[in-house]
Amino acid sequence: MDYQAFFKSRLADLKHDGNYRVFIDLQRKRGNFPEAKWTSGASTKDVAIWCSNDYLGMGQHPKVLAALHEAVDRCGAGAGGTRNISGTTHDHVLLEAELADLHGKEAALVFTSGYVSNWAALGTLASQIPDCIVFSDSLNHASMIEGIRHSRAEKVIWKHNDLEDLEAKLRAADPTKPKLIAFESVYSMDGDIAPISQICDLADRFGAMTYLDEVHAVGLYGPRGGGIAEQEGVMDRLTVIEGTLGKAFGVVGGYIAASVELCDFVRSFASGFIFTTALPPAIAAAATASIRHLKESSVERDAHKAIVAKVRRRLDTLGIPHVDNPSHIIPVIVGNPAKCKFLSDTLLEEFGIYIQPINYPTVPKGTERLRITPSPVHTSGDVDRLVCALHSLWSQCQLARQPVAAE
Amino acid sequence: MDYQAFFKSRLADLKHDGNYRVFIDLQRKRGNFPEAKWTSGASTKDVAIWCSNDYLGMGQHPKVLAALHEAVDRCGAGAGGTRNISGTTHDHVLLEAELADLHGKEAALVFTSGYVSNWAALGTLASQIPDCIVFSDSLNHASMIEGIRHSRAEKVIWKHNDLEDLEAKLRAADPTKPKLIAFESVYSMDGDIAPISQICDLADRFGAMTYLDEVHAVGLYGPRGGGIAEQEGVMDRLTVIEGTLGKAFGVVGGYIAASVELCDFVRSFASGFIFTTALPPAIAAAATASIRHLKESSVERDAHKAIVAKVRRRLDTLGIPHVDNPSHIIPVIVGNPAKCKFLSDTLLEEFGIYIQPINYPTVPKGTERLRITPSPVHTSGDVDRLVCALHSLWSQCQLARQPVAAE
Ligand SMILES: Cc1ncc(COP(=O)(O)O)c(C=O)c1O
Ligand SMILES: Cc1ncc(COP(=O)(O)O)c(C=O)c1O
Repeated sequence: MDYQAFFKSRLADLKHDGNYRVFIDLQRKRGNFPEAKWTSGASTKDVAIWCSNDYLGMGQHPKVLAALHEAVDRCGAGAGGTRNISGTTHDHVLLEAELADLHGKEAALVFTSGYVSNWAALGTLASQIPDCIVFSDSLNHASMIEGIRHSRAEKVIWKHNDLEDLEAKLRAADPTKPKLIAFESVYSMDGDIAPISQICDLADRFGAMTYLDEVHAVGLYGPRGGGIAEQEGVMDRLTVIEGTLGKAFGVVGGYIAASVELCDFVRSFASGFIFTTALPPAIAAAATASIRHLKESSVERDAHKAIVAKVRRRLDTLGIPHVDNPSHIIPVIVGNPAKCKFLSDTLLEEFGIYIQPINYPTVPKGTERLRITPSPVHTSGDVDRLVCALHSLWSQCQLARQPVAAE
Repeated sequence: MDYQAFFKSRLADLKHDGNYRVFIDLQRKRGNFPEAKWTSGASTKDVAIWCSNDYLGMGQHPKVLAALHEAVDRCGAGAGGTRNISGTTHDHVLLEAELADLHGKEAALVFTSGYVSNWAALGTLASQIPDCIVFSDSLNHASMIEGIRHSRAEKVIWKHNDLEDLEAKLRAADPTKPKLIAFESVYSMDGDIAPISQICDLADRFGAMTYLDEVHAVGLYGPRGGGIAEQEGVMDRLTVIEGTLGKAFGVVGGYIAASVELCDFVRSFASGFIFTTALPPAIAAAATASIRHLKESSVERDAHKAIVAKVRRRLDTLGIPHVDNPSHIIPVIVGNPAKCKFLSDTLLEEFGIYIQPINYPTVPKGTERLRITPSPVHTSGDVDRLVCALHSLWSQCQLARQPVAAE
């Protein structure tokens, strides 16, 4: 077999379908985010980032950077080992305590990423608990899907956020078998939010564990940034809360928070936890500083809500259609990969505005979109430039508008 | 089902078998590694680490730390997005170019860890290439095993480092089917090294791709730290070279280096690459500095070889048995999990020497061991204290000795 020819032809297919992804080479400037320098070939250009998941700008917060610098000075760069073999540092221990406290759980366990935390935790629970059936929301993130797939456990997919369907499927399952309901709070591509407490009611009725991915909610919702479950006062009803350190907390890494025994169990049996170098202690220290700050300060969360509302309002007054949802994510559905890419390219090249086109496989074909993520570090001027650019593009390309809202 | 009771009973089993792992809470001190502070309950103690995979002490190298500080000052903490969605920074681009150059390949692709690079790259290649058969060395690392398992491809396990067995198995397979031979250069638990060039001969004869994990060799072997394949002048014969940024390079992260098309293919189809926050740019910058330094400097590699030889010699003169191998890893087989843990605990508590016991599932049951990893930052005094401690423990516990070598 000619392997190179095979790769080439598969890549050509992607290009033909408009699904080939080109990386945007950015240089963020500390203190100036969302501004960044974009390098393309020999040229560079200043752009404003409108699609980052550094939702609150914590990636440039002075406390976070100070903690990172301090820990590098104190103990160096890498952890130098897996968690079991010389890679557990005091900074990891403190981070896990901070996370357990954030979610009101007995314990927490840190992984190298949110992806790995989902993959390893779900993979381990569903494979090790004999005969476990996993009830997975149909729009769950790739990392959860891969974890469940990895486990080889029986998997039942229920309609996205549909309590009736979940109930019917729980009812249809063997009542003697162990069950795990896996879902997210804020779904990152549509910005809708799961009915957590009603899902917990069903879990109670059918004797299921609950596994909630709060990756797009931690730091952002709840009085201390504990996520949607904190905001709704239901953290104690969830068996596992999973999150990331790489989005609102502005660093990198992932975790689960749960009972001491569950964390100890995953710690002891998860290949993806055991056989990998631990996060650098300085990364753990920076994440801890970020979490601590957001536990005490609501300034960033309040400003975030305000700017999200403002962007929505401005889009409404221009009739630019966006998905209505109760979260901070503003998806503008384009519905065609080539057009979506064209809009994104034009925004970048002509207007200095960077919004990545979101195409298949990240979203289903036919729902290609621009996904706008305002943050408290975007200024009024940034918002003006964004809406004006979209306005002129919508005219230029004769894209559909919705009825215009009053200002 | 009582889930908590289930977790408890499985944990009790581990404890009963002596396989329960207790984290050692360390605080490395920049500039003082391998010395560290160990916290246990309320007490702390100074210890020397003898089991780190920061093999060259690059985790505290001034150039690495300067690059890390500089990049944090320049662009902040996290990348703020996946590689496709605002998370590709110029530091990632430079790192990938540096890695491609290191291995003499057209391209490289960085992942959040070596674990993820193996899992995602093998998983993608073996699942996407139709009818691919993977020929996997029987002692391959967990991350490779999981990647292959993930792919659902046909898997043929060949006897560890056994060319005859590999040949027989290649011969027995359908000649029309695509094939991938997956193996490591330095096997981390025994320290033996694969016959890379002969494996490439077989790959050529049977039309197979080759995938080489150089995680325990990059930075350490070859004139520029390109690994065993560089040392043996066979880098160009390998389809994929995989490595880590978290061991000899002293930071965190993983990568593959290969043709432009192969890297682009994995970049385009690997869930574990696409759906996760990129490494922080500062981590990429620190890793780049480390690789660059080790491309130009052999001081660390030479000192490393010298101290490894010295430790082996000193163990020989005391008759303390260790596995003979051509690498930098010195395994002392104990063969029993409880005894292994007892030795490690006593070394730590009484002698201030930290060598993690390596038990199942990291190594097969019955081959439990102390795995000693000398580094150029260990002093002669450190070596003296290590061998004296082992000597007195071997006497105290009446452990078997081998014939004593002449000094
Ligand atoms: C819902 C969800 N879960 C998990 C992840 C993975 O988290 P991380 O980026 O920390 O790997 C993501 C995005 O990356 C996500 O959107
Ligand atoms: C052979 C081998 N491959 C891959 C890995 C994973 O690399 P990383 O620690 O960067 O995840 C390890 C160890 O952790 C390893 O020993």
